[in-house]
Amino acid sequence: MGTTKTVISIDAMGGDRGPATVVAGIAKSAAKNPDIRFIVHGPRAELSPLISKRKLDAQCELRDASDVVSMDAKPSHVMRHGKKTSMWSAVESVRAGEADVCVSCGNTGALMAISMIRLRKMEGVNRPAIACLWPSRNETGFNIMLDVGADIRADQDDLLQYALMGMSYARNGFGLDRPRVGLLNVGTEEHKGRAELKVANDIISSAADANAFDYVGFVEGVDIPSDRVDVIVTDGFTGNVALKTAEGTASLISEFLREAFKYTPLSRIAALLALTSLRRLSKRIDPRRVNGGVFLGLNGTVVKSHGSADATGVSAAIKLGFKLAQTGFAEKLAARVASNVTPGQGAASPDHDDPTGDHSTTEIS
Amino acid sequence: MGTTKTVISIDAMGGDRGPATVVAGIAKSAAKNPDIRFIVHGPRAELSPLISKRKLDAQCELRDASDVVSMDAKPSHVMRHGKKTSMWSAVESVRAGEADVCVSCGNTGALMAISMIRLRKMEGVNRPAIACLWPSRNETGFNIMLDVGADIRADQDDLLQYALMGMSYARNGFGLDRPRVGLLNVGTEEHKGRAELKVANDIISSAADANAFDYVGFVEGVDIPSDRVDVIVTDGFTGNVALKTAEGTASLISEFLREAFKYTPLSRIAALLALTSLRRLSKRIDPRRVNGGVFLGLNGTVVKSHGSADATGVSAAIKLGFKLAQTGFAEKLAARVASNVTPGQGAASPDHDDPTGDHSTTEIS
Repeated sequence: MGTTKTVISIDAMGGDRGPATVVAGIAKSAAKNPDIRFIVHGPRAELSPLISKRKLDAQCELRDASDVVSMDAKPSHVMRHGKKTSMWSAVESVRAGEADVCVSCGNTGALMAISMIRLRKMEGVNRPAIACLWPSRNETGFNIMLDVGADIRADQDDLLQYALMGMSYARNGFGLDRPRVGLLNVGTEEHKGRAELKVANDIISSAADANAFDYVGFVEGVDIPSDRVDVIVTDGFTGNVALKTAEGTASLISEFLREAFKYTPLSRIAALLALTSLRRLSKRIDPRRVNGGVFLGLNGTVVKSHGSADATGVSAAIKLGFKLAQTGFAEKLAARVASNVTPGQGAASPDHDDPTGDHSTTEIS
Repeated sequence: MGTTKTVISIDAMGGDRGPATVVAGIAKSAAKNPDIRFIVHGPRAELSPLISKRKLDAQCELRDASDVVSMDAKPSHVMRHGKKTSMWSAVESVRAGEADVCVSCGNTGALMAISMIRLRKMEGVNRPAIACLWPSRNETGFNIMLDVGADIRADQDDLLQYALMGMSYARNGFGLDRPRVGLLNVGTEEHKGRAELKVANDIISSAADANAFDYVGFVEGVDIPSDRVDVIVTDGFTGNVALKTAEGTASLISEFLREAFKYTPLSRIAALLALTSLRRLSKRIDPRRVNGGVFLGLNGTVVKSHGSADATGVSAAIKLGFKLAQTGFAEKLAARVASNVTPGQGAASPDHDDPTGDHSTTEIS
C-alpha cells in the first residue's frame, strides 16, 4: 500500500438492487476521485460487461467469485461454506493487504462473521462493534452510534472500548478534534440504569482526559440526534432496536406526510408548491447521504453499505472508506486500543497526532 | 363503586403547566361526559378558585394536600417523605376504593413507587409494567408497547406477563377482540437475540390460544408503528430507549420540516398553503391524542399523563381512565393473570367475556 492510490475492495453482489447499481456507485466515486483504485468481487461473466460499459477497466481489477451470500443466509452457514462468495473474496483482499478497505451491501451478519474469522479481532478488543451514522442537529449533520448490532451483549469494559473506538472514528473519519461521548441510558441521573452502566459511566469518565475526548455522561433516546453529543455508546441489542425504531418512525412520518398532502385537491396544489421544501427536508434525513456502517475493532476496515443503497448510497460508502484509509484510521485505532489495555499508558494519543508513523507493523498496513 | 358514576382521582399538581391546565382538562372531560365525578388532590387554597372558576364544584370533590412531588424528586425519597403530597393522596383514593382510576401528570418514577407501595402488585405479577400508546398504521391509530420504563429488567416469565397484560389492555381499553402480540428483538428469525427472548418466544406462543390472542413472533424496531401487530412486548430498558428515540426522531423531523419551509420567501408561501396538510399530519402523530401511559399489574389502575400535557392531553388521559374503569379492566386483568399462574387453567378467558362478574373480590372493586 506504499503507492499514492487508495485501494477499495468491493463486494459487487448481495445488494437489493444488484451489481449494476454497485458498479454505478463505483463509477460515481471514480469520476469524483481519481486517487481510488477498485478490486471488484463477483461472477466475472456478470461483472465484466458492467465495468466495461462504465469505462472503468483502468480503475477496476475484477476478481472472479462464483457464489453470492443471500440476504437471509445464516452467518454460521456462510462461515463454513462461503469461501467462494464475493463477500468472502472482498474481505480476503483486505486481509491479504492488497486493499485498504472493504465495502459490501450484503447481509450484515454474514459480513461480520466473515470479517471476524478472516481479519480477526484487534489485539485488546473483546467485542467488535458496528458504528452507524445518525442524522442530527450537529454541524456535521450526523452523530455516530455504536454498537448497532455486532453483538447483543456488552459489559462495562466493552462499553469503554466502544467509547474509545467511536471517538477515534469521529476524529479520523470526520475531523472532530475532541469528540463528545455519551452513554445511552433510561435517564441522565447517575443512579439510573443497569449495574454495568453505572460502572461504565465511571470508567469512561476516567478515560476521557487521557484520550482527549469529552464525556457528557448518560444520554437518553431523545438525545441521539441532538447537538450535545457526537458519539453515543450502547450495547448492540439496544442500539439495533433504537436504530430500527428511528427508521420506522421516520418512514411513518413520511407516509403520513404524503397522505396529508393528498387529502384534498387544494392540499395537492400545496404539495406541488412545497415540493422544494420537502425535498430539502428529505435530503437532510436521507439515509443515502450518511450511508455506511463501519465495523470497528477488527484488523482492517469494513464498511457495510445499506442493502437497499442506490448508486449515490454506494458512492457515499466508498467515500467513507476512502476517508478512513487516508487518515490511517485502522492503525491509529489499533494503537489507541493498545494504549488503553495497559492502564496508565493512556496519556499517549496515537490517533490524534502520529508524527512517527511507526504503527505500520499492524497486519493491515 | 356501585353507583353509575365513574370516579377519577386526579393529582392536580406536578405537571409542567401547573394545576390550571389540569383543571382545564377536567373541565373538558366534564363537559363531554356527565358520568364522571372527580376527586381532585392538591393545595386547597390554590385549587379551590380554579375549580370554582370553571364551575366544576358539583362534579369535583377537593382533597387538600399541601406538598407537591417535583419532577426531579428521587422515588426513594418520595416513598419515605411523600405522604402529604397530592400524588400520594391521589393514589390513596384508589387504594381506599373511593375512586376507580388515578390520573397524574407528575414524576413517573415517583408515581410508580407510590403506586407500588400503596396499591401493591397484583397477585401473580412479578414486575408491573408501564404501557404506552404509539402512533401507528393500525385502524385504531396506535399500537401499545410495554414495558416502557417501570423496571429495567424483565426475564422470560415477566415478558409472558407483559404479553397477557398488554393484550388484556388492548381488548378492554380499545375493543380489540383478538389482539396481535409481538416480542421486540433485533431480528425476526427464531435464532436471533438473547437467551431469555428465545424462551419467552416459546412460552408466549404456547399461551396464545388459551388466552385468545394472536402471537406474531419476533418484531423489530421498524415494526413498532406497523399494522402487523397491536401489542409490542419488551423489557423496560429497551422500551424506554425505543420510546424516547422515536420522540427524538419525530421532533428532529418536525424541526427540519419547519426549517425547510422557512428557507426562501417562496417556501414560506408554500408553507401557508400547506398549513392544513401539516396540521393534519401533526394531528396524526400528536402525542396529546394518545396521551396516557397505564401502569399494569397493580391492584388498581393508574394513568400517567405526559408531564407537558395541555388541557387536551389531560382530558385524553381522563378519557382513557374512564374507559378502563367502565370495562372493569382492573378486575378482568387480575383474573387473567391469576388464570395463568396455574398452568392448564388457561382455557378460561376472564377478560374476554365475564358474565358471572364474580371477580369483585379483588381489593379495587
